[in-house]
Amino acid sequence: MATRLSDVAARAGVSVKTVSNVINDYPHITAHTRAKVEAAIADLDYRPNVSARSLRKGRSDFIALAIPEMASPYFAELGAAFSRAAKRRGITVLIEQTEGEPAAEQMVLDGMRGQLIDGIVFSPITSTPAKIGAAVSSGKPLILLGERTAGGTFDHVAVDSVQAAYDATTHLISLGRRRIAAIGVGGGGASGTGAVRRRGYRKALKAAGLPHDPALELAGTGYHRLDGAASMRALLELPEPPDAVFCFNDLLALGALRTLNDAGLSVPDDVAVVGFDDIEDGRYHSPSLTTISPDKEWLADQTVALLLERIAGSGEDARRTLTVPYTLEIRESTAG
Amino acid sequence: MATRLSDVAARAGVSVKTVSNVINDYPHITAHTRAKVEAAIADLDYRPNVSARSLRKGRSDFIALAIPEMASPYFAELGAAFSRAAKRRGITVLIEQTEGEPAAEQMVLDGMRGQLIDGIVFSPITSTPAKIGAAVSSGKPLILLGERTAGGTFDHVAVDSVQAAYDATTHLISLGRRRIAAIGVGGGGASGTGAVRRRGYRKALKAAGLPHDPALELAGTGYHRLDGAASMRALLELPEPPDAVFCFNDLLALGALRTLNDAGLSVPDDVAVVGFDDIEDGRYHSPSLTTISPDKEWLADQTVALLLERIAGSGEDARRTLTVPYTLEIRESTAG
Repeated sequence: MATRLSDVAARAGVSVKTVSNVINDYPHITAHTRAKVEAAIADLDYRPNVSARSLRKGRSDFIALAIPEMASPYFAELGAAFSRAAKRRGITVLIEQTEGEPAAEQMVLDGMRGQLIDGIVFSPITSTPAKIGAAVSSGKPLILLGERTAGGTFDHVAVDSVQAAYDATTHLISLGRRRIAAIGVGGGGASGTGAVRRRGYRKALKAAGLPHDPALELAGTGYHRLDGAASMRALLELPEPPDAVFCFNDLLALGALRTLNDAGLSVPDDVAVVGFDDIEDGRYHSPSLTTISPDKEWLADQTVALLLERIAGSGEDARRTLTVPYTLEIRESTAG
Repeated sequence: MATRLSDVAARAGVSVKTVSNVINDYPHITAHTRAKVEAAIADLDYRPNVSARSLRKGRSDFIALAIPEMASPYFAELGAAFSRAAKRRGITVLIEQTEGEPAAEQMVLDGMRGQLIDGIVFSPITSTPAKIGAAVSSGKPLILLGERTAGGTFDHVAVDSVQAAYDATTHLISLGRRRIAAIGVGGGGASGTGAVRRRGYRKALKAAGLPHDPALELAGTGYHRLDGAASMRALLELPEPPDAVFCFNDLLALGALRTLNDAGLSVPDDVAVVGFDDIEDGRYHSPSLTTISPDKEWLADQTVALLLERIAGSGEDARRTLTVPYTLEIRESTAG
């Protein structure tokens, strides 16, 4: 049978009210009394009824993370990092997969249908800035992840994708590559990942005095291995195939590497390949994948810290933008 | 401003009570009235306050899936499949990563601390059968996933891991391999994945009249690429290295493949490799990975269906065990 508050009180020789005060961390309790109660709690392995406690303090200590795709390793690794960052602060993360569906994204914007959640971290795919902006009314603190912002209505956390794409492309140029393709330019619509990273890619070509050839910019239909493999096949069929490819995520790059392998081409000698995300898969792949590595632990940790600040209502009022640090990890797919 | 029930009533020319009755699908409403209200709802793009509605019907239409590791592709793919299976039935899945920590697993067994969740699917790692058995009291329907059962206290969903491991090992034997190693025998303690799959592995060796060599059974420290790579290095240092390896999950196999590649060995000519899980990564890898492929869509779909039956209190009372179908997918890592 579960230990009850009254058992703890009897063991500690104090009233039930005093035990409750200790558990809820009320002031004006002597160190002596606190120690007695804590010893009794430990002896009896008592677990407070956290649900009742949350209702009293108006918090559940649960937050939600809404991501488009669970099975995408980038989001899976990010979800794991969020879970760890929250746990360090005594908070539990519940993760929801929206698949970028408007109805699922709307439910997130509406505050997760009355779930006992203190705040939300949301990576939108299809919600327009207008819809996101209209969501302020849910009353729950919400932080946006990724390329899609809402004109400053919410706190926002993202990598500087233009600069990162510029760095990735410049790395390929520095290796002497001149026909550099880009895979994934269609991702996420006009304000999405594809458009932003293409800006950095084109900027780097321009800075190096290289022309940009629209035939080398492939949209594909998604950001999966399948799409990378198909786009690479299309590139190899060009009259003048590329000598390097910058893929806008690692899954696209891993698909492209499979196509290059099947075609008997050597990486990086024939074609150098760069990805984006630094998922574990790319580190163990043969050849290992050169990639932009956003600091996912930093991202999760800082985002959870900011969300908890918003939930507590402490800190400045002005909306903040956190820019996630990244590095370019040079591995075998470009440095052979 | 959000559309309210009264706006819909005014537009349809009926009372607020009637609109509410239509939304809650009460009987005794004429088809004519229903059509008028539904047209008004559509015209005004009205979204009912689902939270208030759930309280009335005593259900939230949220279920939880508690898995040890989000960043493990098997669980990530499984989470995505659950999310889709639930969505097809109008239900949302919230996913929690326990990291196999006793406190996090206990919270799941306790019913997720008062979250508005109708039922739980739980893949335990560290909870003992006794602890799992004691959890019946949370009152929320709970289904166990994976090797750990609780002596019939709960519904249970798993692959027949003994048979699957037997099939994987027998496939290697049929290719003429005679020194077949096993990586991952230590996973999950005495009643866990490692012990169960080792039983199938040994059974296959015995059936073929092959001795089992304890030096070829590696526990490693986990089920990640890192562990597979390290275990493979240890195997290559043996006086008589193996000519085949059965890895108890695909991540171990992908780590082992990286080590074999670094050592200049050819797969499958020098060493054939089989995994378990059929994650996407293994399908695109060069060489592609032969593996046991559990039907994850079936698993998710049948588990969600059973959980909803338990939530509704319909169906038979007796605890059920769902055995997940699987296939052996023969690819380049064994069939060249």
